Order: sequence, then C-alpha cells, then structure tokens
Amino acid sequence: MFKPSGLITLTSDFGLRDPFVGVMKGRILDVAPAVRIVDLTHDIVAHWPAEAGFWLRRSFKYFPSGTVHVAVVDPGVGTARDIAMVMLDGHVFLAPDNGLLAEVVSLQSGVRLWHLDMTRLDGLGIDRPSATFHGRDIFAPVAAALASDRIKPEVIGRHVAALIPGWVDEATVTEQRVSGVVITIDHFGNLITNIDRRLCERLIDPVVHAGKLSLPLRRTYGDVRPGDPIALFNSFGVVEIAVAEGRAAESLGLSRGAPVSVRDGVRRS
Amino acid sequence: MFKPSGLITLTSDFGLRDPFVGVMKGRILDVAPAVRIVDLTHDIVAHWPAEAGFWLRRSFKYFPSGTVHVAVVDPGVGTARDIAMVMLDGHVFLAPDNGLLAEVVSLQSGVRLWHLDMTRLDGLGIDRPSATFHGRDIFAPVAAALASDRIKPEVIGRHVAALIPGWVDEATVTEQRVSGVVITIDHFGNLITNIDRRLCERLIDPVVHAGKLSLPLRRTYGDVRPGDPIALFNSFGVVEIAVAEGRAAESLGLSRGAPVSVRDGVRRS
Amino acid sequence: MFKPSGLITLTSDFGLRDPFVGVMKGRILDVAPAVRIVDLTHDIVAHWPAEAGFWLRRSFKYFPSGTVHVAVVDPGVGTARDIAMVMLDGHVFLAPDNGLLAEVVSLQSGVRLWHLDMTRLDGLGIDRPSATFHGRDIFAPVAAALASDRIKPEVIGRHVAALIPGWVDEATVTEQRVSGVVITIDHFGNLITNIDRRLCERLIDPVVHAGKLSLPLRRTYGDVRPGDPIALFNSFGVVEIAVAEGRAAESLGLSRGAPVSVRDGVRRS
Repeated sequence: MFKPSGLITLTSDFGLRDPFVGVMKGRILDVAPAVRIVDLTHDIVAHWPAEAGFWLRRSFKYFPSGTVHVAVVDPGVGTARDIAMVMLDGHVFLAPDNGLLAEVVSLQSGVRLWHLDMTRLDGLGIDRPSATFHGRDIFAPVAAALASDRIKPEVIGRHVAALIPGWVDEATVTEQRVSGVVITIDHFGNLITNIDRRLCERLIDPVVHAGKLSLPLRRTYGDVRPGDPIALFNSFGVVEIAVAEGRAAESLGLSRGAPVSVRDGVRRS
Repeated sequence: MFKPSGLITLTSDFGLRDPFVGVMKGRILDVAPAVRIVDLTHDIVAHWPAEAGFWLRRSFKYFPSGTVHVAVVDPGVGTARDIAMVMLDGHVFLAPDNGLLAEVVSLQSGVRLWHLDMTRLDGLGIDRPSATFHGRDIFAPVAAALASDRIKPEVIGRHVAALIPGWVDEATVTEQRVSGVVITIDHFGNLITNIDRRLCERLIDPVVHAGKLSLPLRRTYGDVRPGDPIALFNSFGVVEIAVAEGRAAESLGLSRGAPVSVRDGVRRS
Repeated sequence: MFKPSGLITLTSDFGLRDPFVGVMKGRILDVAPAVRIVDLTHDIVAHWPAEAGFWLRRSFKYFPSGTVHVAVVDPGVGTARDIAMVMLDGHVFLAPDNGLLAEVVSLQSGVRLWHLDMTRLDGLGIDRPSATFHGRDIFAPVAAALASDRIKPEVIGRHVAALIPGWVDEATVTEQRVSGVVITIDHFGNLITNIDRRLCERLIDPVVHAGKLSLPLRRTYGDVRPGDPIALFNSFGVVEIAVAEGRAAESLGLSRGAPVSVRDGVRRS
C-alpha cells in the first residue's frame, strides 16, 4: 500500500527557459494545493530517457518514503506508447514506458509494475489531453492525485509483467574486469559512468581505464593536485573520472558513451 | 472581488545565475510566510516584454483561480513608467505597463485594468525602492500582500481605461490566410508562433508556410520521421514548426520574428 | 538565541543540470518535512567561494530573520577543512570554512562564529558522509535540523575566534579614491564590483574609472541612451557598470577581476 508523503519530484528534458515546468506545477497545485514539489533536474539530454533513469535510480532514496517521482523524457508523446507506473521501497515512479525506468526496475525484486489505465482517470480533469504535452495534461494531475492520496496506484494501474528495456546496456562483470560507459557529464565536467561500486568489490587494487588513462581509485578530489585527473567512486556510488578543480570532459577528450573499464591493478597470484 | 489562492507565479528576464529571483522570493516570504511561489520562467529574452506576455496569456489558466502572476521584464525600471495590474478570470497580473500584458488584456472583455497607486502602499515596507530592482522592492511585497489577502487590488489600484499596447502585432486574418510571426524558440529548438488555432478554423486543409517550407498540419511529432520538419498546433494551441527529435531553429534557418502564414491547402471551389 | 523561521536558502556552484540540488532538498525534507527552501543561486563560478560570499552578504537581509543560509562552494570537500557556522542579525549561515563567509563575518561586530563539531550530530542520520558531496550528507540534514528547531547552533558548534580569510581583498579607501574589482558579471552582462556605496560617501561628484572608461554615477539605466555605458550604485548598493539595454561585459571588454576605482569628479579646492 502506497502511503504518500505529499512530495512530488519532477525530472524532464524540458529545460527551464520555457514555462513548461512551471505550468506542470500549476496543474499539480490546482489538483492538490498542499502538495510540495522538488525539481530533480530538467536538463536531461533531449529525448534521452536513459540519463533520467540513471539519476532517478540513484536519487530517489534521499527523498522521504511516499514520494511520487515524475519523469518525462518522451520522444513518443502522442503516439501509442504506454505510461509506466512503478512502486519500489514505498516510492512511486511515473514515466513514459520507453526504457526510462529500466534501471529503477532492475534495482530489486520487490518492485511492482503497472501501465496507467487511461479509462480509470475520471475526476482528474483529463478529458482531452493534448498530443504533445502529457507532462501537463496527464502526468501532473495523476501525480497530484497520488501524492494527495486521492487515488491509489492499484486503482488506476493495469498490472504488467515487464516494462520496455533500457537504451543503454548495464555494466557487465567478468572475473577481472567491469565494463561500462560514460552515462553523463555533470556541471563540473566530470565523467560519470554506470559502473556501480558493488560491481567492483571482487577486484584487487582496482584501476580505472578510459581512453589512454589508467587511474587508481582515490577517495576525494583533494587527493590529487589541481589539474590532475582522478578516478573515484562518487557520492552516488559510481565510478567518476574528474580533473581536480578542472573539467575532465574537455581536458581528457572523453564524452558520453565512451567505454570505461575497471580492472585488477595487480596480477593475481 | 479577488479571492487569493495563496499562490504567486514569477516570470522575468532575470535568469537564474544571480540571486535576483531568490531575493524576490525572500521578500515575498518575509511579507507573507505561507504563500507558495512557482517560477513560470526567468529566461525571457532580456528586455523583450512581448515574450513574457505571450507565455503568460497561454499559461495562467493552468494555475488555480486566485493566483497572482508577477512578470518583470522592465527596461524602463526607475523611469516614469507605471505598474499595471490586471484582473481576469479570477487571476491577478502585475507587470510594468510597457506592453507586457497586452496579450492578456486582449483576451476578453471582462478584464479589469489598474495602475498601481504608489501612495496607497503604506504598511508594505516600500518606503524607498531602489531605482533598478522594482521586482524586489515593489512587485514582491505587493504580490505577497495580494496573495495573502492583506490588500485588495481595487484598494491599491487606480482604474485606467487601457494599457500600453504590445510590441508585436497580433496575428491577422483574411479570408484565406492567417499571418503571424515566430514569437519564440523553445528549449527544443521548436519555432513557436503567435497564430492561434481558433484563427485557423475557417481554413480548408490548412498548410503552414515559413521560409521555403510548406507543411500540412499534423497532430504530434511522431507523425513524421525523426529529422523531418513538421507543423502542428502545439499544446498551447498555437502553430509550432518543429523537426522531429531535432532542432528546427538551427536546421531550418528560421528565427524569432520570421513571418509565418497558414493558408488553404486546396483551391476553394 | 536562534529563532528559526522555517526557511532555508541554498547557494552553490552545483548548477541545475544534475540532480545535486534536488537531492539536497530531498534530504532536507526527509529530516524536516515542513521546512521551506529557496534557491539563492546555484551558478556560482565553480570553486570560487568569493562570489558566493559576495552575494550572500548582500542578499540575506531580504529574508525573514531566523532563516538558515546554506552555501556550498567547496573545492576542499573530503579533506580536513572545517564547516563554518555564523550567526548574524538572527540569521544562521553554514558553509565550508574556506573564506566563503569572510564578507558576511566582516559585516559587523555582533557576529558569532563556530566550527561544526562533527561529534555532536547524533540523530541526524550522518553516520558515514561521502567524501565528495557534503552538501547532501552534512549541510542538508544540519540545516534542516536547525531550521526546524531540532537543534541549536550552540549545541553543535565549537566556538572559534575567526574564520579563514576571504580570497578577494575588500575595496580600499584613500582620501580621494576608492579601489575595488569587478567581482561578478550578472545575467545581463552588467559588471558588478565590490565597491559599496558607503565607501564613496566622502567623494565629491564621484566618477567611476574602469579600463578606458570614466563614467559619472547615474541613478538608473534609463538615464542614458540604449547602447551607452553607465555607472550606478545598483540595487545591492555596489558600483555597477552597465550598457543600457546591452551587455557591458562584451562591449566594454572588461571581466571578473578587472580593477575599478571611484574618484572625485572635480578638483578639491
């Protein structure tokens, strides 16, 4: 049973220069005036659901249980794609069923999956959604109704066994190597990969390989001199390649999609 | 009679890189701690009130009745320009009287128009406003007082018959053609015009003309292949020219101010 | 004694394109669900604490007394640097002790200074902070606890006599000249200096000198023609060099760090 905290997070590729996000918030507050809204990010690379799912998976646990997480990165808006609803650890996620939630779903077995049943949304004011802005016309009022306990997920959802798979392969593990990719570049120019710390637990003195670089894993940016490259498990638990007080993306010549591996740093005996 | 919902929206050309917007919110919450604030957008093209008015007109109805909408795009700040206050459909709008609210005012006849009477603002802490930041020093405390029901519009307003006209001509209609312009380019590079759907109702199989393009009106981005141009009535009810999963502004070579027309697609018999 | 208003402001160099700020808000609302949060700015130049301190000093008074101001510009995160806590005029400030709060501290003598005592933070869920994101793991829960009155500054602080000095010299005053620098460039391209109005009170008909320019001080942008340069005391009480309806940074060829002086405009008799 979902117990709403009254909090909604928003993630999208809408940017903040147009009123799209503001209008979604207007719709939410029109349905549920007491709900609180936090922007996770609206600068997901346009039409690239994988980045939204990557961040959602690694961010949702910092919010109170009972939070509704809305993510709209939706190149297929207005076509026949479904809307996915997921419950995990007391949180509910709403997103187009286009692979966006694949990483969230893969997180554990206790997850519940639905498609939104558009015939059960009476009373939310969704009579004629536009063809191009479901964030405002469907996601906003549904999230508001869920967050304010006016409807329950199981009432508006049609149970499904699986969602559309993600667009990016998860990191793979062999005995002496974990292989992944740069999934995004952050505001500081740091290269953020999809290689989770737990995948690297069996490696001995792990070394990160990317392009020409071989970097031992460090603890924090201050462990190298300003301008030097560094690899570390970042605060979201994934391998990150940075340049201390600099911009790795520019100075290392690596970008989104670049392969990264973590290997044993010493020969096994 | 204005019945405040306790909600304020903010629109400006201040951007988010400086603390200007944050400081306006501080002022609002200092006057009215329980008020809620939603950013509509702060990336209006600098000193270009027309874009702010365009978006306000098409966004306000998604907010609860009783919302106070503040829009500060104000190249004449500190000069003798007036501050306009408008009531429409239970919403109140505050903006410099520089044409910004022209589109809102044109919307219907039931609108009420005032200039703010600076001599009636006692008790709001506006004794010596700065010459350059009325958003913080006047708009914020007045909006806070209105949204928290401490003052009524008719108490602080001096009735006027008309506001300063807008800077951009509204779209014009002849028997077989509707003519407008690209009013803004959104985050996705889509070209957004000031041609409303209702102006096109009498056209037969309407076709959108812009630069070298002639595009029939479609329903949603998925109706053409990625990379192809498309024209549609967007989610705000105006003609938009896009490139599916691409950026129309760059690939079509059209920008703000470009003329766009919609014409009959077939010869009338 | 600190009496919290229930309000927290956030200032950082995190930008808004990643979920870092959103996740800090999640942490705050997880600890203190009723707290309200206002973004001051997240576009501080990366790793440049001086700009954050400059804005905080000139912004905090617009917020209600009892506000907690969190500023995270933290190139030394994860190293041995302390966290500074300052109380001034009923406001509390939290920031890395790296010079960021130097300007706030210099403001007056009634200020109280602490370092956060990490051994006294039990019950806030800070057992193992990451090495690279103290904004989420330490600042957020501490600010939430302070703003919701769960802890008092004096309980978690260890009194100190002084903080680390700032990175930028304050403006200097001689009999006929005040000398400072361009501290930041705002969204409009205006050059904002660290020369406060009160430092210029003894000058006669003051003239602002920067690069090749000599500009008398004006009142507002409308006092010169569009395209002309202008100097004025801006709405934060410091000397600003602008181009009316234009971008001074680009057209005048001046940037952050450029020396600026204000001198007598007439010969003293």
